[in-house]
Amino acid sequence: MESISYGAIAAVLTTTAFLPQAFKVIRTGEAKSLSLSMFLMMFVGTLLWALHGFDLEDKPMIYANLTTSGLNAVILVIKIRSIIREKQVNS
Amino acid sequence: MESISYGAIAAVLTTTAFLPQAFKVIRTGEAKSLSLSMFLMMFVGTLLWALHGFDLEDKPMIYANLTTSGLNAVILVIKIRSIIREKQVNS
Repeated sequence: MESISYGAIAAVLTTTAFLPQAFKVIRTGEAKSLSLSMFLMMFVGTLLWALHGFDLEDKPMIYANLTTSGLNAVILVIKIRSIIREKQVNS
Repeated sequence: MESISYGAIAAVLTTTAFLPQAFKVIRTGEAKSLSLSMFLMMFVGTLLWALHGFDLEDKPMIYANLTTSGLNAVILVIKIRSIIREKQVNS
């Protein structure tokens, strides 16, 4: 029982954690201090976790990781756009 | 076999993803576009995943999540310091 409750709260927290970050970059359009590598690794990593979930036929694993992957994709797009904009300003 | 390889690459990516972000905030001391909520949720969430790992006696789960939790703690400290500094500048 105890292991179920730890795991459940952990799953909710680590799946939804990217939500406030996505909101923040959408609201401000600002992503300077974000690491491109981090969000790229999380995007690919959670996509692979979802594939792993497909292999295990584990629906919570598939949906949770596709959600996190989607949020990372949003953050990535804004981060890449801010890099391009910065390059244009500097050139 | 296929499920093992997806899962293994996924695990490496999502565990080490916070490393470049930690390096970036340490190097620049800048954390303005980071969401405090996100890194707080990841810190607590991965700590709870580690506790879940203790319950399951799953060593890779314990070590991987303690690593990610530690990296999130470093990022959090710099983020909170930057919030305090900004408040001092504005007052």
